[in-house]
Amino acid sequence: MTEAGDRIGAFLPGAAVKVAGAGSGPLHGLTFAAKDLFDVAGHPTGAGSPDWPRSRALPERHAWAVQQLLDAGCDLAGKTVTDEISLGILGESAFHGVPVNVRAPGRVPGGSSSGSAAAVATGLVDTALGTDTGGSVRVPASFCGLFGIRPTHGRLPLDGMAPQAPSSDTTGWFARDPATFKRVSAVLLGEAIPLAPKPRLTVAWDAFGIADTAVAAALQPLVERLAALAGAAEDGQLAPQGLSEWARAQRSLQPYEAWKTFEGWVERFNPRMTFTVARGLIGGANIPAEDRKWAALLRADVRARMAWLTRDGGMVCLPTTPFPAPPIGLSVSAMDVYKDRITCLAAVGGLAGHPQVNLPGATVDGLPVGLSIIGARGQDAQVVAFAAAMAQEQA
Amino acid sequence: MTEAGDRIGAFLPGAAVKVAGAGSGPLHGLTFAAKDLFDVAGHPTGAGSPDWPRSRALPERHAWAVQQLLDAGCDLAGKTVTDEISLGILGESAFHGVPVNVRAPGRVPGGSSSGSAAAVATGLVDTALGTDTGGSVRVPASFCGLFGIRPTHGRLPLDGMAPQAPSSDTTGWFARDPATFKRVSAVLLGEAIPLAPKPRLTVAWDAFGIADTAVAAALQPLVERLAALAGAAEDGQLAPQGLSEWARAQRSLQPYEAWKTFEGWVERFNPRMTFTVARGLIGGANIPAEDRKWAALLRADVRARMAWLTRDGGMVCLPTTPFPAPPIGLSVSAMDVYKDRITCLAAVGGLAGHPQVNLPGATVDGLPVGLSIIGARGQDAQVVAFAAAMAQEQA
Repeated sequence: MTEAGDRIGAFLPGAAVKVAGAGSGPLHGLTFAAKDLFDVAGHPTGAGSPDWPRSRALPERHAWAVQQLLDAGCDLAGKTVTDEISLGILGESAFHGVPVNVRAPGRVPGGSSSGSAAAVATGLVDTALGTDTGGSVRVPASFCGLFGIRPTHGRLPLDGMAPQAPSSDTTGWFARDPATFKRVSAVLLGEAIPLAPKPRLTVAWDAFGIADTAVAAALQPLVERLAALAGAAEDGQLAPQGLSEWARAQRSLQPYEAWKTFEGWVERFNPRMTFTVARGLIGGANIPAEDRKWAALLRADVRARMAWLTRDGGMVCLPTTPFPAPPIGLSVSAMDVYKDRITCLAAVGGLAGHPQVNLPGATVDGLPVGLSIIGARGQDAQVVAFAAAMAQEQA
Repeated sequence: MTEAGDRIGAFLPGAAVKVAGAGSGPLHGLTFAAKDLFDVAGHPTGAGSPDWPRSRALPERHAWAVQQLLDAGCDLAGKTVTDEISLGILGESAFHGVPVNVRAPGRVPGGSSSGSAAAVATGLVDTALGTDTGGSVRVPASFCGLFGIRPTHGRLPLDGMAPQAPSSDTTGWFARDPATFKRVSAVLLGEAIPLAPKPRLTVAWDAFGIADTAVAAALQPLVERLAALAGAAEDGQLAPQGLSEWARAQRSLQPYEAWKTFEGWVERFNPRMTFTVARGLIGGANIPAEDRKWAALLRADVRARMAWLTRDGGMVCLPTTPFPAPPIGLSVSAMDVYKDRITCLAAVGGLAGHPQVNLPGATVDGLPVGLSIIGARGQDAQVVAFAAAMAQEQA
C-alpha cells in the first residue's frame, strides 16, 4: 500500500511514514498502519492535532507496539488519522477529514482510531494499531465490520503511545479476518492463541436492551453460534446499578484524567481544537471531586461485578455499539445523543479493564454492527481464540 | 500596497481582496484595509475562523462601512487578520498568525482588529476598519500607537459586519495621523469634524490608578496638554462601584450574547477554535440568568454615570490599556491576567456605548500606550476634533 493508494483519507496527509519490518518473523509479509498516537522514530507524532507536535521533541524510538510488529516482520505502511488527542468516538476529524467507511458509505468510521479501522476495512493494510480508552478501538471495529481488541488494561507497555486517561488507556488492534487477528494478537500479547475454550457464556440482557431493537435482532445469530460453541449460554445482567450509572462513572473519571493529561499543553500552547474537544476538556476540568470519588468507588463495584461474571473462564457477550455507524456531519447535539448511548455500552471497558474483542459478522440495513466478548483480566488470548473460532467455524 | 508587500502578516493569506474606490471623493488617494469581519462582495468573510465561511453564502454586497469608504474614493487594499470571531483582545491568531506590531517588536499587536492595526501602523494602508465590542479597536490602537475610535453604539449601520455581542458591537477605524483620522471620521460619521471644543475634562483617577504606574506617568504629559487645550481639568471617579465591578458586568453580558450569536454555528458545524475561544463561548453559555440580570441593571447605572460625566459637552480621559503590548506567546493563565486587567478599563465602552477615541503619543520603555477620551453619546465628531487638535498642536 502506498500513500498514493489512499483514496479514503485513512492516512495522514503529507510525507508517508513507512518502515520495513524484520526480514522474517510470524507476521512477515503483512503490513500495518499505526494511529498517529504512536511514535515512529524520526517522525512527529501528531495525535490528530496541528498543535500537539509543538509540545514534544521528535521521537527517537518507535513506540513499543510499533517495534513489536516490526520485529515480527510486519511492514509499517503509514500513520493514520485520529480524532484529536483521541477525544472522539465518531471519527470525524475537523483537521484531517473523515476516513471513508467502505462498509457504510456516508457514515462515520467511528473513532478515535478512525483511520486505522478504515485502512484495514478497505484492505490498504492487514492490521492496524489503535488506542482504546473509552471505546476507540471497539467502536470503529463495530462500525467498520472488523475484529478489534481492547486488551487487559495494564498488560501491554504503552511506551511511545500518547496518553489520554491513564487508568483506562490501552493499545488495541484491528484485522479483517480471524486468522490475521490471531496472528497479530499472538505477537502483541506475547502468547500463543490457544484452542478455542468452552466458556460459561453470559448474554448481557441489559446491554442488549440498550441497543436498537434491530441491532439486538441482527446480533442474535452470532450469539446463538457462540452459545453453540460454548455448549450453553445464560442470560445475565451486566450492570445491576444500570448501564447509565456505569456510563456516568466513566464520564466522571475519564474526562478529568484527560484534562490532567492535557492541562499543561493547553496552558502552554492554547492549541486549536474542535469545539467539542475543548468542551470535553473544560467539562473534565470542572468535574467535582465528590463526583470523582463516587465514580472511583463505583469502579470498584464494576470490577467486582466483572470479576464475578468472568470467574473460572467465564465470558460475557454484549452489543459493542447500540447502533451501526451514524451519518457523517450531524449537529453537535445530535452527536451527543449518539455518544452518550455508546458510552452506556463502552464504559465497562475503561472501568473494569477486562479484555474485550469485537466480533464482526452482523449487519442492519447492510451496515456492520459488532458483538463484543469480554473475558477475565489476562484472558486476552482465550477471548481472541473464542471469537476467532466462531468466525472460522462460520466461514 | 500589494499583498506581496505584506511582510508583517497583517493581511489574510491567499488571494488578495482589492477594490478600487470611486474616482473622486474626500478620501481619494487613500487606501484602506478591512478586518475580515466585514463583507466584501464576491469574497468569503472568514471572521478569523476556517469554519466560519461554511455558515454563510458568499457576500453579494459590500458591508456598509466598506461601501462608505469606497464611495468616498478610498481604495480597498485587502482584508486583515482578526482574532477568531472577534473573540480575543491580544491579537494572536492560532489560525492566521500574529500580525507584527512594528511599534513593539516581539509583542502582540492587540486584537481582535489585529491585522487592521498592524497594517496602519506599518504604513501599508492609510486607514483600516475594525470592530470594537469589548475593546477590539481601542486596545490595538493603544498597543500599536494609533488613533482609533469606537463610535457611539448604534450610530453606524452594521450591515455586512459579522456580529458578536450586538448590544456592544461597533464599527471602528484606525489612522496614524490626526489629519487622516479626521478625514476618515468625517466620512464614516457622516458629519464634518468641527473645530476643537473646550470640554469640561474629567481625569478618571480610578482608571489611572488601575494602570501600571509607568503608564500613568507616561500619559501625564498628554493629560496636561489636553487640560491646557480644554482650559481646565479636574480629577474625578469613573466607576463608583469599582472598575472591577464594571468589568464583571461586561463579562456577564458580552460572553453570553456572543454565545447566543454563535450557538447555531457551533451546533451545526462543530468548528475548529483556539482553546480559549471555545472556553469563552462555553463560559458565556453557562453565565447564570441572575448574573445577567444584575449586570443589565448595573449597565443602567453605568449609563447614568457616563451621561452625567459627559453632560454639557464634558469629556473623560483615562488610560486605554493598563500596560503596553504584552509579549507574544504567553501561557493561557498569563494571558488571562492581562485580559482581565484590560477589561477593567475597556468595559465602559461596551457597557455605556459612548464614543471613545484612543490618542497615541506616549510610550513606556519605547512601547506605545494610548490615552482615551470619552464623550457623550453622539458627540463622536467632537471627541475626534478634541483628540486630533491636541495631536496637531503637539506636532
